[in-house]
Amino acid sequence: MGEKVNPSRRSLIGWGGAGLALGAAVAGGAVAMAEAGGDADPVAADTGGAVPFHGAHQAGIATPVQDRLHFAAFDVKTDDRAEFVQLLKDWTAAARRMTAGKAVGEGAYGGLAEAPPDDTGEALGLKPSRLTLTIGFGPSLFGKFGLDGQRPAALVDLPGFPGDNLDAARTGGDLCVQACADDPQVAVHAIRNLARIGFGKVAIRWSQLGFGKTSSTTPDAQTPRNLMGFKDGTRNIAGTETDRLKKFVWSADGDGPAWMSGGSYLVARRIRMNIETWDRTSLQEQEDVFGRDKGEGAPVGKAKEHDAPFLKAMKPDAHVRLAHPDSNGGITILRRGYSFTDGTDGLGRLDAGLFFLAYMRDVRKGFIPLQRRLSASDALNEYIQHVGSAVFAVPPGVRDTDDWWGRALFSGSAKSSESAESAEGA
Amino acid sequence: MGEKVNPSRRSLIGWGGAGLALGAAVAGGAVAMAEAGGDADPVAADTGGAVPFHGAHQAGIATPVQDRLHFAAFDVKTDDRAEFVQLLKDWTAAARRMTAGKAVGEGAYGGLAEAPPDDTGEALGLKPSRLTLTIGFGPSLFGKFGLDGQRPAALVDLPGFPGDNLDAARTGGDLCVQACADDPQVAVHAIRNLARIGFGKVAIRWSQLGFGKTSSTTPDAQTPRNLMGFKDGTRNIAGTETDRLKKFVWSADGDGPAWMSGGSYLVARRIRMNIETWDRTSLQEQEDVFGRDKGEGAPVGKAKEHDAPFLKAMKPDAHVRLAHPDSNGGITILRRGYSFTDGTDGLGRLDAGLFFLAYMRDVRKGFIPLQRRLSASDALNEYIQHVGSAVFAVPPGVRDTDDWWGRALFSGSAKSSESAESAEGA
Repeated sequence: MGEKVNPSRRSLIGWGGAGLALGAAVAGGAVAMAEAGGDADPVAADTGGAVPFHGAHQAGIATPVQDRLHFAAFDVKTDDRAEFVQLLKDWTAAARRMTAGKAVGEGAYGGLAEAPPDDTGEALGLKPSRLTLTIGFGPSLFGKFGLDGQRPAALVDLPGFPGDNLDAARTGGDLCVQACADDPQVAVHAIRNLARIGFGKVAIRWSQLGFGKTSSTTPDAQTPRNLMGFKDGTRNIAGTETDRLKKFVWSADGDGPAWMSGGSYLVARRIRMNIETWDRTSLQEQEDVFGRDKGEGAPVGKAKEHDAPFLKAMKPDAHVRLAHPDSNGGITILRRGYSFTDGTDGLGRLDAGLFFLAYMRDVRKGFIPLQRRLSASDALNEYIQHVGSAVFAVPPGVRDTDDWWGRALFSGSAKSSESAESAEGA
Repeated sequence: MGEKVNPSRRSLIGWGGAGLALGAAVAGGAVAMAEAGGDADPVAADTGGAVPFHGAHQAGIATPVQDRLHFAAFDVKTDDRAEFVQLLKDWTAAARRMTAGKAVGEGAYGGLAEAPPDDTGEALGLKPSRLTLTIGFGPSLFGKFGLDGQRPAALVDLPGFPGDNLDAARTGGDLCVQACADDPQVAVHAIRNLARIGFGKVAIRWSQLGFGKTSSTTPDAQTPRNLMGFKDGTRNIAGTETDRLKKFVWSADGDGPAWMSGGSYLVARRIRMNIETWDRTSLQEQEDVFGRDKGEGAPVGKAKEHDAPFLKAMKPDAHVRLAHPDSNGGITILRRGYSFTDGTDGLGRLDAGLFFLAYMRDVRKGFIPLQRRLSASDALNEYIQHVGSAVFAVPPGVRDTDDWWGRALFSGSAKSSESAESAEGA
């Protein structure tokens, strides 16, 4: 083992061999400088399809929705705060590289070989594919590191809703990472490498692959169909609507603890569809349940998907009518869900449905009142069942190459990176 | 319910309303004529990305490998041969339409509405996405309909191999359908609609989603990486290599019963990878196990993936060395496997690996001797486990709009469609 230099192969696959240490802050800085500059690294130069990792908000929320999802909830296995902070730094450095379309380590695989490899390799040669990685902190995380005082009031444990049939093995989690990309291999690779880096410190509690987006955050785009064949959530917030994002999605100064300013809250629900029952339901009944026509997605009595709905033309328990902001005092959430199909259950029925992901400024004012209403009255309830559930505080974006996921929470300050670093003794 | 004519919406979504009966042979014929002619149906006219359904061989074998897979094994629930034959005809008509990018029924959803809908709708507006649907008949099917005499000798039950840890719930099946497409929603839609059409006559026994192809049947293409990060099976048979296809893949006249002439045999194995163990294995060990380098995929001592391997330079138990035709008296199979990730097992480990699919002319001369050797000696065995298994006889292609999946088997003749129809009394 040890060094394994093979210049011809290195040039073939296009990875430089600078040998930066994985996860150190200095490595992140050097990488970002390389990204910004016009260096000769042919992979770094090919940034087609890369979504910027740095910003005031994490990517993967207002970002135009990618085609595929791999979502993982983790349990924290360490009670050593310094070790956990180092993991967050290591993850940030890895996420910075992977979202730029790079392998986790500089060595992979033509440069300085490492043992074991510093990247699992299955995404080598694939494009960045608009990969975004978005981290969230679950309610149970705060107590583990003496941070109960930093837990936002907006991050409440979800109450039980009528009809919930939650599987504990698909519910909760101290942490989550949402990986979205246009190539599923890129999304799977990212989660796997974060899990690998976290070995011994965190463990995957549950995970979910989503094969097709069901929402759009692109203005005027057609909403993709869910597995019921319908377009739902057609009035979603577009990523360019800064006013609605500000009002309904981003946590603002004064909303709660300072470390969440610029962050958001994520509700994840695994919603199983009773596919076989739905498929034997008449078209008229299906359209009545949603309050839309199936072909175009137009609200009842309207011609096109994006026409304003006339709610009173719908049945009282129609999904669109109940879920519409006009029926809920203006409640609006940003939906980013994916269709899933996880094979077949023991009865030969497809284990398929919607992995619902929604971002909001306050769970108490977003998902909870909306779901109270829907779970009590929605005609759709006959055909669906919520079987998994989790809620996370999604911190603001990583600002620059010195910053890392959760620094403001674990260092006590969102704004002053110097004092934060020194306060923590890093 | 009943008629629901809405001409403006019909034109919006582009489906004609000719109202052909689902599944009848005459409907298939009319559809195919519409495909060939220059009719005004804007969806039918958009055949970009459609793979021809008719041919001497079924599509989905030598066809260039699509990106995504939904595979389903079915149990037959009826013992009524006429009912089962009607299902095969209905499936063929539906497959003919779906592979052309059309909904199953003409009515969906702007024309003559049907109750329940004749298509589940989630693929409306999506492209054909190179969808192929490939049917196979399992060993257990023949006895159910008094066809033991037609079971090919080449379709043997697979023996147990060392290391097998087969889950009965993911093994076997009377029938299978392999759906491959570049859009997973299109592949999922196709299997779901076949299951829906088969309700009461067949039931899904198990199914598998594959998110990334691991093989190529395109000459000179780079082999996609599996979840171990390696390119494997780089000497796969290209779809254009008619000589090797004839020698190793297609069942010929005289190989067995006449109804299989032009068909092939499919072995499906769900191969779980011990991802976490593999990821902690050194790069050198990984490369030794495969007998390739990880970055480029070149055989030991060579520079490029497609360079001819020098087998003796590899360790005796290296995967490439053991699997290579030169070590196996020339055994060659056509590989068409996909990577899968089905969440996490009860121990927090990824349930991920390779859903191995391979086509061959005779299972006794293809997979069985190859796997006997690999299961006994392959260094890879430390990192993988076969957890599901099935074998199917894949009949020849549907010749024309009068033909249907399995007609030669169920009508007793592969060549004479007139006499076959009358012999069966259809």
